[in-house]
Amino acid sequence: MRLRLTPRDTSYFDLFAAQAEHLVTGAGLLGELLGAHRAQRKAVVQRMSEAEHAADEATHSIMRRLNQTFVTPFDRDDIYDLASRLDDCMDLMDEAADLVVLYKVDALPARVSDQVAVLQRAAELTAAAMPRLRSMDSLSEYWIEVNRLENQADKTYRKLVAQLFDEVTDPIELLKLKEIVEKLEDAADAFERVANTVETIALKES
Amino acid sequence: MRLRLTPRDTSYFDLFAAQAEHLVTGAGLLGELLGAHRAQRKAVVQRMSEAEHAADEATHSIMRRLNQTFVTPFDRDDIYDLASRLDDCMDLMDEAADLVVLYKVDALPARVSDQVAVLQRAAELTAAAMPRLRSMDSLSEYWIEVNRLENQADKTYRKLVAQLFDEVTDPIELLKLKEIVEKLEDAADAFERVANTVETIALKES
Amino acid sequence: MRLRLTPRDTSYFDLFAAQAEHLVTGAGLLGELLGAHRAQRKAVVQRMSEAEHAADEATHSIMRRLNQTFVTPFDRDDIYDLASRLDDCMDLMDEAADLVVLYKVDALPARVSDQVAVLQRAAELTAAAMPRLRSMDSLSEYWIEVNRLENQADKTYRKLVAQLFDEVTDPIELLKLKEIVEKLEDAADAFERVANTVETIALKES
Repeated sequence: MRLRLTPRDTSYFDLFAAQAEHLVTGAGLLGELLGAHRAQRKAVVQRMSEAEHAADEATHSIMRRLNQTFVTPFDRDDIYDLASRLDDCMDLMDEAADLVVLYKVDALPARVSDQVAVLQRAAELTAAAMPRLRSMDSLSEYWIEVNRLENQADKTYRKLVAQLFDEVTDPIELLKLKEIVEKLEDAADAFERVANTVETIALKES
Repeated sequence: MRLRLTPRDTSYFDLFAAQAEHLVTGAGLLGELLGAHRAQRKAVVQRMSEAEHAADEATHSIMRRLNQTFVTPFDRDDIYDLASRLDDCMDLMDEAADLVVLYKVDALPARVSDQVAVLQRAAELTAAAMPRLRSMDSLSEYWIEVNRLENQADKTYRKLVAQLFDEVTDPIELLKLKEIVEKLEDAADAFERVANTVETIALKES
Repeated sequence: MRLRLTPRDTSYFDLFAAQAEHLVTGAGLLGELLGAHRAQRKAVVQRMSEAEHAADEATHSIMRRLNQTFVTPFDRDDIYDLASRLDDCMDLMDEAADLVVLYKVDALPARVSDQVAVLQRAAELTAAAMPRLRSMDSLSEYWIEVNRLENQADKTYRKLVAQLFDEVTDPIELLKLKEIVEKLEDAADAFERVANTVETIALKES
């Protein structure tokens, strides 16, 4: 068990919480993007890219602190992993949004909103869990629920891919939609990896 | 050189051996899948997914032990890497089998059986090598042979991709077959990464 | 601050510099490939694959030394990361060149030369930076410039993908070109990851 609650230690938890808040913003913007008319999409994607830059900044401040301090609230590698994996979630949601505009996609399959709903829920659970890293209290509910959400996302993803191959006859349109749907599935996987990292940290500290 | 042969140390080797045995099962099921009629495929893929769950459990018991014990037979990071990379092999073989059913593939190119044969051989070599981690004896034959197999798999993969682009005129069918063939190549790469991890461990201990 | 300038330490810098020199060769060969007639491509790709093998050897000698020595000029993990990420750059440039021949691509979009120009510049900057790891002097110019180059590469990549979807009507041709363009973008990302690793090392040492 290492020292806790010194200002330096504390701020890691604040930084992780800040990083996770950007994920809630990003997942929310994915929802807006689904509802937006094609003409409005660019503006939503622009805000997503701003959220991605902000999250990037939060990640870098964690890395900078990590590289320049000795006392850390838990293993350096775990802090590095957690920060990197939170950052992955944002990058993947940003890339998915970006593809929708870049590929000038006409309409997305209705089930994509199920994928986005899972990401929004996972982001909220992650943001709520980060402050609890300080006390390590009741984190298991979080990672169990995120793992359950990822299994649900995986089922949705598989149905979507099968549907795309059944219904989309234009191979180029199929190529575009498949890549967007895969990117959203990668984002769900990334949230699960965050949860697994938190589980690893909690097990070590317990 | 660290302590060996305490019960706790031993069980890591048993757990790695158990993990690798699931890979032999998985590679065998890939062979069955190639021989199966389309109607039987779902059942084979179901058994594959059970094998994947079992391998997952084996991986988690290694991680749990790793996170809760201090004495390890070799570097914690290497134990983590080895367990993760063994798990990757299973995941990729499972995903490949899954795609065959998900994409309702009609027939696979004959050369795919060469890819699967390499995976079966690599899985057997890996399972035979894991118990030898205890004594670190004659492991070099293992990693040299797995690296040779991966080079062979790579040549087969390249021939297959060229063949697909030459012979498959339906772009959607091409998309499906290419992804399955790539997944099998990724699995061969994953076995090589396991072998490289074992080499790293052996070099440190020597 | 750790011991520097012992022969053993020194040679790590020489090995990293050697590794980076292979990247300059590889990026140069990509340029040759763009200018080559289809009949000459195979020969260029052959030389690329020789450069890749040489880079592989350089990587392995670093790993071997790392696994068998105790004194290192900076953290073992950072040496491992830097060597691996330099190796990734070579692998990705090699794979990109390989696809041009494997896919029997007719003509590449003109903008691909912009992607290659960025890789050549990034390789030169990386090769020039490696010897400066010894003194840790003026490395920030290097990583800032490589990050700038990667942003530029990203913009080019996005324009290229949009262009491919707008102009290439044959989905199979689109599939081929998209994969090559993506591989070159992955190579640019790999150079940025090398720069980020150098930044991490420099921050720790500062």
